[in-house]
Amino acid sequence: MRVVVALGGNALLRRGEPLTAENQRANARTACEALAPVALEHELVVSHGNGPQVGLLALQGAAYTPVEAYPLDLLGAQTEGMIGYLIQQELGNELPFDVKLATMLTMIEVDRSDPAFGNPTKPIGPVYTKAEADKQAKEKGWTFKPDGKDFRRVVPSPLPQRIFGVETIETLLEDGCVVICAGGGGIPVMYTDEPVTAGRRLVGVEAVIDKDLASALLAADIGADVLAIVTDVDGVYADWGTPDQRLIERATPAELETSEFAEGSMGPKVKAACQFAEQTGGRAVIGSIRQTQALLAGDAGTTVTLEKAKVR
Amino acid sequence: MRVVVALGGNALLRRGEPLTAENQRANARTACEALAPVALEHELVVSHGNGPQVGLLALQGAAYTPVEAYPLDLLGAQTEGMIGYLIQQELGNELPFDVKLATMLTMIEVDRSDPAFGNPTKPIGPVYTKAEADKQAKEKGWTFKPDGKDFRRVVPSPLPQRIFGVETIETLLEDGCVVICAGGGGIPVMYTDEPVTAGRRLVGVEAVIDKDLASALLAADIGADVLAIVTDVDGVYADWGTPDQRLIERATPAELETSEFAEGSMGPKVKAACQFAEQTGGRAVIGSIRQTQALLAGDAGTTVTLEKAKVR
Repeated sequence: MRVVVALGGNALLRRGEPLTAENQRANARTACEALAPVALEHELVVSHGNGPQVGLLALQGAAYTPVEAYPLDLLGAQTEGMIGYLIQQELGNELPFDVKLATMLTMIEVDRSDPAFGNPTKPIGPVYTKAEADKQAKEKGWTFKPDGKDFRRVVPSPLPQRIFGVETIETLLEDGCVVICAGGGGIPVMYTDEPVTAGRRLVGVEAVIDKDLASALLAADIGADVLAIVTDVDGVYADWGTPDQRLIERATPAELETSEFAEGSMGPKVKAACQFAEQTGGRAVIGSIRQTQALLAGDAGTTVTLEKAKVR
Repeated sequence: MRVVVALGGNALLRRGEPLTAENQRANARTACEALAPVALEHELVVSHGNGPQVGLLALQGAAYTPVEAYPLDLLGAQTEGMIGYLIQQELGNELPFDVKLATMLTMIEVDRSDPAFGNPTKPIGPVYTKAEADKQAKEKGWTFKPDGKDFRRVVPSPLPQRIFGVETIETLLEDGCVVICAGGGGIPVMYTDEPVTAGRRLVGVEAVIDKDLASALLAADIGADVLAIVTDVDGVYADWGTPDQRLIERATPAELETSEFAEGSMGPKVKAACQFAEQTGGRAVIGSIRQTQALLAGDAGTTVTLEKAKVR
């Protein structure tokens, strides 16, 4: 099978855990232990989130005053390099030496009229208390929103419209490479507003694309059989956080659309899974990184397909 | 021809210029205007330096105290993402839409017994006055060395021994891609000191590999016809900085070995050019980014080959 595994931010950094290099490497190693058997069995593309990391880079940039902090497209590109490196190195450490791996920088086009630019929703960076969040909002002009009992910075998260380099990703897969790409939802870019003849140019955009929606688009573009969205919980729950909460083992997009899921965490995962199933007729699974193989086999987590009956 | 163009730090950021996103993008655009015709005519691999950028990331990391600053391998990976993105985007803007471009993260193995680990020589980050350099040395434990009339931080710069992913770079070239890789001299890595059977692992190394030597190794590995090392000066000069200074239009490695060139600037470029010519019998050229096409044709800059007579 051709498989896209989208690693959630929480699969690379446990909630509240300090963003040290050691923690990120240790979590990347754990994730890669789960991914290695998949790489040996299937054509594998790995994508990943970058919320905590891109937020940290923004804080570091703001803390060093001699040079103005960089825009989010450049910071996103930095996280693609750093996180891609950790995954490539640790996944390589779990695989025989002759398995080829490639981390490809990925730009993704967004629409300038996307309403997300007027309504920031994507959480990045560390979690803050209300007092800390208010202080940062005042100092830096950033927007913060509640995230559970904490607060996090939020930035615009426009929809991914077109992935650059899809053909190249396919060439690498056909060559037997494990491909790490579309990190952090891809680097958001758009064309300047001139006619092509006047020298329209691609430029970066101050935003962070949702990595699950980017992964769903990527999976559709490369004709993946399965999109696996892996995180630190074992699937999608109905009535999450109530005494009645129960794992949804299988659902159609239509069934899931009747429920609400947390914006910024399970919401985008469900939306991305539904989008992939609807657009391609393929299978999307959501669940724990530790159960990746069982997820792909349809034996764990939440499976989203157009068909109601379980296909084995 | 198959061509490797190594962009010097000074081709991406003029000496002393502030390291803003705008300056880096503007310089990347100028560099890519020079590279675009090469991409249309030849199989092109672009590598680049990261000295100023990796130094800035280290300063930003040190300025934000809640999270411990990241090691140089992670920062190097960040710069591969960021600079690779700028080059890919700006080069793409200069080329027809159907020209494929790929930025590949590149790890390069170094030797744990390399004497460079005991003698840091590679300048990174901004330039400082002596007083500023002394203050930073005291505060952060960093090493500084004179660089012209200024001072810069220096870090170990071990020799590149093995590039990971060479086969993949060749696959992409054969597929018609312009490949951007080995940025910042590659991400320095080495194996842990255990036997393979005990689970030897690849890990990152606190160093910055010289991008010219990495590019020479890459050019040899992929069977490049020409290695072009481009910077902001128009070639290698004999008696540089004296009234007798004159451009060396053509030289053999043996001839160049009798002269001394500035460590940390022209020295490594000459060394890399000689190494490529000696190891492959191919042609290396050193000169100005603005003259890249003339350099490749042997009509500008300094040509280094084993043959004494000019071949046209």
